[in-house]
Amino acid sequence: MEFTLKPVGVVRSPYKDFSQAPYQGRFSDAVSEIEVFEQFSPALKDLETCTHLIVLYWLDRARRDVLVTRTPYGEEERGVFATRSPHRPNPIGFCVVELLEVRGNVLRVRWLDALDGSPVVDIKPYSSDIDSVENAVIGWFREVSK
Amino acid sequence: MEFTLKPVGVVRSPYKDFSQAPYQGRFSDAVSEIEVFEQFSPALKDLETCTHLIVLYWLDRARRDVLVTRTPYGEEERGVFATRSPHRPNPIGFCVVELLEVRGNVLRVRWLDALDGSPVVDIKPYSSDIDSVENAVIGWFREVSK
Repeated sequence: MEFTLKPVGVVRSPYKDFSQAPYQGRFSDAVSEIEVFEQFSPALKDLETCTHLIVLYWLDRARRDVLVTRTPYGEEERGVFATRSPHRPNPIGFCVVELLEVRGNVLRVRWLDALDGSPVVDIKPYSSDIDSVENAVIGWFREVSK
Repeated sequence: MEFTLKPVGVVRSPYKDFSQAPYQGRFSDAVSEIEVFEQFSPALKDLETCTHLIVLYWLDRARRDVLVTRTPYGEEERGVFATRSPHRPNPIGFCVVELLEVRGNVLRVRWLDALDGSPVVDIKPYSSDIDSVENAVIGWFREVSK
């Protein structure tokens, strides 16, 4: 059983490779653009009313054969499902972004950590009521950050 | 250009079809299970230290040819990228879930709205610092909910 994704757009970002990208886009003020391909533009209707978006993109430069990995936060190996590493069995990138502007098929956003040229596979509206959780903690990370 | 997803697990939930599933799992107390397939179990290391997870799953009963849709909230058609409709070009479901228990390869969770039998494609740790946004609004939805 396999499923096929087709790109619906592409990322234009300041990050040319993993060494340039922030570990988390949330902590950067850089502005990126998402160009949605013309044939999907009807799906953008009403998007400009959203303050924040969920962007799912394809980590096309990631490895898929990694199950445990060392993170930037210590020597211990972690299971990739317990990390935000790009290297994972299905390398789908997830970012919450602030929507700055919609200009035709181009979305200007903040907080995206995708590399330049990354294929975009889905865009969803972010809602604090549904998607925001207070006091959610990655326990192993809290331990090593003490 | 196309990308291939392979399931890493499967959802066991009380929802047999879309008519039974809540519009948003967040507003339900139902408990679901995610069975991670044996070969991916090393990727679960340290997952039990996380309070909440991001679950990406495949909406295997959704349509992919829909770009605008009517929502449960009024007659107006909306672009699917501005909605949380399951019907979209790449039907990847996204849920923030509360992790109740890890029992071997099985995760017991709350807030998942996936149908029973849905393939799971990725699991990530949720962090309030990275993923939580206050006052994020879907403008069109706020208007019709007034």
